[in-house]
Amino acid sequence: MTQWMFARDTAVHARGGGILDTAIRENWDIGGKANGGYLLAIAARAMALETGRPDPVTITAHYLSPGKVGPVEAQVSTVKQGRRFTVASASLSAQGKPLLQVLGTFGDLAAGTDAFERIEAAPPELPSPEHCVRQDPARGSPRIFGSIDVRLDPEDAGFQHGEPSGLLRTRGWFRLLNEEPVDTLGLLLAVDAFPPTAFNGRLPVAWTPTVEMTVHLRGRPAPGWLRASFSTRFVSAGFLEEDGEIWDSSGRLVAQSRQLALLPRDAA
Amino acid sequence: MTQWMFARDTAVHARGGGILDTAIRENWDIGGKANGGYLLAIAARAMALETGRPDPVTITAHYLSPGKVGPVEAQVSTVKQGRRFTVASASLSAQGKPLLQVLGTFGDLAAGTDAFERIEAAPPELPSPEHCVRQDPARGSPRIFGSIDVRLDPEDAGFQHGEPSGLLRTRGWFRLLNEEPVDTLGLLLAVDAFPPTAFNGRLPVAWTPTVEMTVHLRGRPAPGWLRASFSTRFVSAGFLEEDGEIWDSSGRLVAQSRQLALLPRDAA
Repeated sequence: MTQWMFARDTAVHARGGGILDTAIRENWDIGGKANGGYLLAIAARAMALETGRPDPVTITAHYLSPGKVGPVEAQVSTVKQGRRFTVASASLSAQGKPLLQVLGTFGDLAAGTDAFERIEAAPPELPSPEHCVRQDPARGSPRIFGSIDVRLDPEDAGFQHGEPSGLLRTRGWFRLLNEEPVDTLGLLLAVDAFPPTAFNGRLPVAWTPTVEMTVHLRGRPAPGWLRASFSTRFVSAGFLEEDGEIWDSSGRLVAQSRQLALLPRDAA
Repeated sequence: MTQWMFARDTAVHARGGGILDTAIRENWDIGGKANGGYLLAIAARAMALETGRPDPVTITAHYLSPGKVGPVEAQVSTVKQGRRFTVASASLSAQGKPLLQVLGTFGDLAAGTDAFERIEAAPPELPSPEHCVRQDPARGSPRIFGSIDVRLDPEDAGFQHGEPSGLLRTRGWFRLLNEEPVDTLGLLLAVDAFPPTAFNGRLPVAWTPTVEMTVHLRGRPAPGWLRASFSTRFVSAGFLEEDGEIWDSSGRLVAQSRQLALLPRDAA
């Protein structure tokens, strides 16, 4: 068994018949609720095991109830098995209460690296990790930041001392602890591991619960720090989207994410 | 019964037990395959009927097999019914063969129009519909363009006479025929009704089959023409994303879409 925390805390155990035993651990907590990317990673690990395909290629989760620490059951159904991809659905539930409903296409992202490429974007330019602002539970950040190493661009960290930038944007560095490698399941955590854009954007809300998140994976990251950037362009009708990009240390886009979040109704 | 073509051709008939009868009609064809947005609209209509919630808020489809003209069965399951939203899954199949797997959150988008707003974007500036290039089956466009009125910005229509712009971008106008109003189900068609960005981008492919498409709906459109813009920033690892925005005649963003498409392997 690995002692790496993310792999250990997302472990799943097949019981047969598409049912798997797993658990929400306390290390991934944000104010009493498990992080949404962590929950998705648990579901995806169950789906990867059941489909025999290592990598989510595109995966969507709808969030049904907050995840609390304790045992969780995953149920996986194969929707279609093809030559290159398998489509599967999964649900996570705790004591019969549904937490998460997931639909994903799984494949092998080690293949296809010699494909035609055209990229109309670039990784965010960031000060070095040493010059960024580490998120630290000892200084008021949620507990999850004791389990991952997230460092914000100082330009996007002002909300932490009451000086939000005013921009709906969050940029920074991400890695797991103890040099645990980030695979495509780890990317599902990374895309939801940064403070929400609403914190910098001076939105009149304390939090923005996720309704749905979709992640496209383009490759397994090279070792080293990941660069991340998140932005929001549309706050309307009681919703906002948050678009994320994760780039690896070789400068390659490895994940693209979009979530739809609720703007709570007490918003001014 | 309405004589409006889109409503008629996406009609569903509940058989009970979450099973609905429907059909793929010939009007929505692209080279022998039904348009993906049309298929999604059929599934969403079945889900709206079964959940009793009129509007998809966020909906994701994974495309399993090409849709051919003929009878289709929809199967809808409620995942979670909440106060404001119902999460449901659906599958479309033809003669037992799976076509589409869908997961969506449904609600009522007539509410929430007085919510806090902040928009960091604007609708695309387009020449008037009269000065745009109507997609016309009589001039070589797929049959679906006889069932909808799609007009491309001339800057993005060059691919039709062998002069693609070189940019991974498509912009234009959309409406249904005979002044049929576009509701949120119609928006699911609109986000997939334009020529792919690959056609202008000089990508070495003839088509880019959709693996998955997710649509966020922000409101029911005001009457009149819709403005649409689609762009691609990342062609890598054998995939490309296509991001869409649909704006209504009052200048409001009503839908945001992203699809993951395959870059076929014979790409140079």
